[in-house]
Amino acid sequence: MNDYQRFLSPAGRQLHESAIRKMGTVAARTEDLVSFAAGYPDPTLFPWSAFREIANDLLSGQDPTALQYGPTRGYRPLLESTRDVLAGRGIKASLEELLITSGSQQGIDLVARVLISPGDVVLVELPAYTGGISAFKNAQAELVGVKQDRDGIDLEDLDAVCVRERAAGRSVKLLYLVPNFQNPTGLLLSAPRRHALLEWAERRDVIIVEDDPYGVLYFEDVATEVETRPIRADDDHGRVIYLSTYSKTLAPGFRVGWMTAPAALAERFEIAKQSMDLTSGVLDQRVVDRAVRQGLLTSLAPQLRQLYRDKRDVMERAMRRELGALLSWPAPRGGFFLWASLPAGITDAALLDRALAERLVFVIGSAFYVDGTGHDKIRLSFSAPTPDRIEEGVRRLARVIQAAVAAPASA
Amino acid sequence: MNDYQRFLSPAGRQLHESAIRKMGTVAARTEDLVSFAAGYPDPTLFPWSAFREIANDLLSGQDPTALQYGPTRGYRPLLESTRDVLAGRGIKASLEELLITSGSQQGIDLVARVLISPGDVVLVELPAYTGGISAFKNAQAELVGVKQDRDGIDLEDLDAVCVRERAAGRSVKLLYLVPNFQNPTGLLLSAPRRHALLEWAERRDVIIVEDDPYGVLYFEDVATEVETRPIRADDDHGRVIYLSTYSKTLAPGFRVGWMTAPAALAERFEIAKQSMDLTSGVLDQRVVDRAVRQGLLTSLAPQLRQLYRDKRDVMERAMRRELGALLSWPAPRGGFFLWASLPAGITDAALLDRALAERLVFVIGSAFYVDGTGHDKIRLSFSAPTPDRIEEGVRRLARVIQAAVAAPASA
Repeated sequence: MNDYQRFLSPAGRQLHESAIRKMGTVAARTEDLVSFAAGYPDPTLFPWSAFREIANDLLSGQDPTALQYGPTRGYRPLLESTRDVLAGRGIKASLEELLITSGSQQGIDLVARVLISPGDVVLVELPAYTGGISAFKNAQAELVGVKQDRDGIDLEDLDAVCVRERAAGRSVKLLYLVPNFQNPTGLLLSAPRRHALLEWAERRDVIIVEDDPYGVLYFEDVATEVETRPIRADDDHGRVIYLSTYSKTLAPGFRVGWMTAPAALAERFEIAKQSMDLTSGVLDQRVVDRAVRQGLLTSLAPQLRQLYRDKRDVMERAMRRELGALLSWPAPRGGFFLWASLPAGITDAALLDRALAERLVFVIGSAFYVDGTGHDKIRLSFSAPTPDRIEEGVRRLARVIQAAVAAPASA
Repeated sequence: MNDYQRFLSPAGRQLHESAIRKMGTVAARTEDLVSFAAGYPDPTLFPWSAFREIANDLLSGQDPTALQYGPTRGYRPLLESTRDVLAGRGIKASLEELLITSGSQQGIDLVARVLISPGDVVLVELPAYTGGISAFKNAQAELVGVKQDRDGIDLEDLDAVCVRERAAGRSVKLLYLVPNFQNPTGLLLSAPRRHALLEWAERRDVIIVEDDPYGVLYFEDVATEVETRPIRADDDHGRVIYLSTYSKTLAPGFRVGWMTAPAALAERFEIAKQSMDLTSGVLDQRVVDRAVRQGLLTSLAPQLRQLYRDKRDVMERAMRRELGALLSWPAPRGGFFLWASLPAGITDAALLDRALAERLVFVIGSAFYVDGTGHDKIRLSFSAPTPDRIEEGVRRLARVIQAAVAAPASA
């Protein structure tokens, strides 16, 4: 039997592949590649020796439950320490509102599975995180884009799109967004818009899915902790599902994220998760819990902010020097990404072909747009490569862009 | 906002809760409870010191990728060592046919999501593993049961059910079954039936989903390795998706399972997994890979077989002594479970209520039946409790059953 098409479900036929994950596969196969593609954290600040000591203790065999199946909701002490992490962000959440997930990607997937019927509209930013796009598309949602400007999502456009979709008979249930140092733009949603969004969600009866992996990673020269206050912190009406993760602060190899949701929904998510993976990694959860209790998040955060800010400096300086006349970008105020607009006539996919020939990889802008646009953008991630490799990558980028500008026809 | 019903998808509204996971929650809250409920492996044989040494080495920081994001398909060396594990079971699988999953529960979920459209029929054993039932139900499959006898699934009934469902206009795509020491019955599917199933699947154009967590755990007094040969080992036509796990042999706290499928389907599963959790636990995969390469599976297997066989002996002896006149069960030939038939007039749920009052818990038989029957059965797991606790649990079970027989009206 060679042809399995007839066995696939509609969802299985239309699966949406992640452009970023595809780039990762390319990266693993090419020698001397500079990757600005995947938003990997820099492993030099992973607290290796602390993790080693913790694992050493947990694997003594003293506590047999350290490698046993665990509760689907999550390891109870980790739920409690995560509740304290949330309190530090201004979020009050009870344990009934909290769920540990296998990375925050699983949180998005849970939202999609439990809330989305085929054809339901999910509103997303233009551009939006590809992993969000994939998870909602794989639940057969209709994704409809909303404009952004320098302060984040455009509230007038948001309301207009919502009204238009409903007038067309569609069910608009969710707004999915990344308010802090958005993936891919690096934008920070302004405080007034955060408050206005809550009012809007209440007025229009929409649930906000707030995805916040990067909030802690603000750059202290251009952003403050206050500005990263989650929308969920001021949600008095149970309008926000909040997702976050330990992947960008501790390490992503532990698949430990979490979500808060109104208790009635959290209970649904827990049941859905039972048949998805029974439980998130038990050792992973314990290592993360101990790391949090030892205060590692608190002590690491300033170092992480400085590390990524320095890398942003390296990339921006190199870009201005090599490409200042050709590319433009909003200054990243935190997070992992620089979002560049290409010169007129150059398109993202053709540029990527040229870049691959120069052993450089990035993510094409159009991968982040649900409306078919974005071919004039690319996402450059400065988080993982060393400063030297960032410099080298920008030199390669300059070469391919200059070549493309000189000979746009072949591009 | 208190009522979130209008936000739920049909799947989200009809989520199927695992009876076993629910029991786990009860167990965690009750002092001096004897749990025959969850099929947890015995942690005394987890190779703690080997895991500790491996983790110690992996967390040295020498290899920064040990805690980084990894490929969705799985950690390449683990894919290779898993291919060798499969070869030991008679299964030839290429890397294109192999995918690491976050426990084999995720494998079932992937099958459900990629292959099942709402209303598609999945054929399952009567009784069947509840985690399989939940995953398929949560994809809105219609589950239709097929009889079993002492040699496993009844082929005549299987074919009759398939023909009947198709005649009624339904799409029958999958047969899901656990051929080795089935959960919950402990039955072993006979070799002739395994071969006949392959022919049947080819004739009826059905895919077999073979779930094999317990195959290695045969009891050497009543079963042989040859008898556990997977159906997939003799599949020349790409009819079998095979699922297995390291949870019952190494430890379940690492969420590491795997699936093999025809390459065209494995590629679909990989894409679906991207938006579910990006990657399975990276440290977990590396620890398991090293453990397999050190030969731990091979050296542990005989000890595991002996350990669970001894526990089965303890439970069966105690049952015969305390309850031989009241309960009957097929002799378990491997795995974790004893499947008992209750005396006439006693029903599973009422008995569980009595048992809880005696601080004893098991899983009610009806949880495993998709046709509403099974109220005269209970599943007793002997894998996790110590011999003393098994004895104590059987004494409690004898008390509650004798009380129920004496006063059936109140039961």
